[in-house]
Amino acid sequence: MLLRGLPTRTIWPTPEGDAVLTLDQRVLPHRVETVRIATLADAVDAIREMTVRGAPLIGVTAAYGLALAARNDPRDAALEQAARRLEAARPTAVNLAWAVRRTLEHAMARPPGERAAAAWTYAGRMADDDVATNDAIGRHGLELLRGLVGRKRGQTLQVLTHCNAGWLATVDWGTALAPVYRAQTEGLPVHVWVDETRPRNQGASLTAFELREQGIAHTVVADNAGGHLMQSGRVDAVIVGCDRVTAHGDVANKIGTYLKALAAHDNGVPFYVAMPLSTLDRTLADGATEVPIEERSAREVTHLTGRSADGAMVEVQLVPEGTAAANPAFDVTPARLVTALITERGTVPATAQAIATLAE
Amino acid sequence: MLLRGLPTRTIWPTPEGDAVLTLDQRVLPHRVETVRIATLADAVDAIREMTVRGAPLIGVTAAYGLALAARNDPRDAALEQAARRLEAARPTAVNLAWAVRRTLEHAMARPPGERAAAAWTYAGRMADDDVATNDAIGRHGLELLRGLVGRKRGQTLQVLTHCNAGWLATVDWGTALAPVYRAQTEGLPVHVWVDETRPRNQGASLTAFELREQGIAHTVVADNAGGHLMQSGRVDAVIVGCDRVTAHGDVANKIGTYLKALAAHDNGVPFYVAMPLSTLDRTLADGATEVPIEERSAREVTHLTGRSADGAMVEVQLVPEGTAAANPAFDVTPARLVTALITERGTVPATAQAIATLAE
Repeated sequence: MLLRGLPTRTIWPTPEGDAVLTLDQRVLPHRVETVRIATLADAVDAIREMTVRGAPLIGVTAAYGLALAARNDPRDAALEQAARRLEAARPTAVNLAWAVRRTLEHAMARPPGERAAAAWTYAGRMADDDVATNDAIGRHGLELLRGLVGRKRGQTLQVLTHCNAGWLATVDWGTALAPVYRAQTEGLPVHVWVDETRPRNQGASLTAFELREQGIAHTVVADNAGGHLMQSGRVDAVIVGCDRVTAHGDVANKIGTYLKALAAHDNGVPFYVAMPLSTLDRTLADGATEVPIEERSAREVTHLTGRSADGAMVEVQLVPEGTAAANPAFDVTPARLVTALITERGTVPATAQAIATLAE
Repeated sequence: MLLRGLPTRTIWPTPEGDAVLTLDQRVLPHRVETVRIATLADAVDAIREMTVRGAPLIGVTAAYGLALAARNDPRDAALEQAARRLEAARPTAVNLAWAVRRTLEHAMARPPGERAAAAWTYAGRMADDDVATNDAIGRHGLELLRGLVGRKRGQTLQVLTHCNAGWLATVDWGTALAPVYRAQTEGLPVHVWVDETRPRNQGASLTAFELREQGIAHTVVADNAGGHLMQSGRVDAVIVGCDRVTAHGDVANKIGTYLKALAAHDNGVPFYVAMPLSTLDRTLADGATEVPIEERSAREVTHLTGRSADGAMVEVQLVPEGTAAANPAFDVTPARLVTALITERGTVPATAQAIATLAE
């Protein structure tokens, strides 16, 4: 997508091939800075500290991380250990384990001396595949939006999204926002309600930033507002991304997604989940009891960093001194609240039967 | 309730009787400051700027404001105009109009020369009545909590609340938190999940502050977290306040309340609304279409003020420069999602029939 008017991916190898560069998503939207990932430790840190975030992007970052680890020590034990470190960096998104295991398998099939180069190439291919996947999700999602536009008789289509499942969460295009970007290309008028997405504010900072860069109309709202917007008829569809989808169609995604799904259901608003197949975890059935939910630092709730009037990044405290906070980072939306899953292979209902028909 | 260990109301007349003093709720929890309200304009500003907030407290503040206006000009036209200015300061909470109209009626029944004194005395009585009302709500709510504690076999009762419907929203005790304070007095172990309540963070700043001052265990969470907490069995009851309840039992309250009611309903968690009868608007039936919803400044969403590391209050920007935001301040929870209304006359179902039995 466009960054300062230029087509840009969120992760790309240096010309020398000695590292990958990525955007530091912790300082967006106030500063655009790149971060260099040259070692396994760099990759683990970038994932854990959320320099990169978004299930597809952390998968690709981890693949590159494994390739960088192989340059240092390509032996089986070392690579296995590197894989485990990468997988442990964030527990909820299944794409991370998926990408790491695939890259590991690909590298291990070769003699140690060839593994680093093979993994590097494979990570690059995975990045390209992500772009193709999201492009396909965008096309399938566009059909859903077209169906809704028909009923609106030329009025602007109102899409609500939670967190950031856009360009910045992937290598390019995004998952949940891919249909919106495609709609723009096709000339369908779309406006996006952007949940700010506390506590890390990925909506207010990242989604607002990337929609702005692409010139798509949008309005930021507090996470509390979505129910009221739906009640008052101001939302035509909710589209979100996902971090892990079970074989039964339960959807783990950013904390608060479940609340929006409940509101959509209560108001007859379609609730779509953009799901690359890499996010499907066929080993799990019941999302609410089986998906591990990452508990992040209380400080993400009690403190917040923004840009002060003089342009400096300042962290401020929001609660009384010493106040305890809990910070579950994801929740699970039961399949019964999901209107459909938009995958790269087409749109399917969130049922075990339909999901089973999606080939591996 | 206790403030720095001393029993304190949120609004009180000066010893000279020339003004009322109140806590500046815009700077809590980081600073404890009082604000002097000596004129009608002071009262209107305090309500509009949310120096005072909470449906019951703004009602009492407005009553004092009318009394102060009567000192300046006690004639019919002047008092009517003062009443309209006060009512227009915030549109959603019906207690404001209720308190203003009652005080106006009380004053108008007297000759102009006696009106200021009569209104002043009446405002003081209204403050005392609020305390008695909340004390009664606390006693009735306690019975509900006792019923839940029975099932927990000695485990700590987990209550989730949204926004601040505590001491600081009233003259004393609070509405939604009154049962919690009463439980503490009775030795029932209670822990409160505190929704931070974006965009103004009344939970993170005010509810956390007052629970801390009373020594009640609590944990602040992002507004997004409540659904997950309920799904994972960590909430025994939700108790919220309200700004206007219709004759059919629909509840207008702080934006985001509806989302928590949906989650409570979906998880079989009782959802209680603490409702002083002054919050009942018998003239309205359907909340979603009939209650006026205040739209507040976008800046409350795009910017946030907190305490920086060096102790200064700093406002930071959360979104890209120039980003649009919408800020509806309330939403409506349909009666079907409300387990019961806790009033000063007892606990009743949120049905038109039960509400009709509550005498004026």
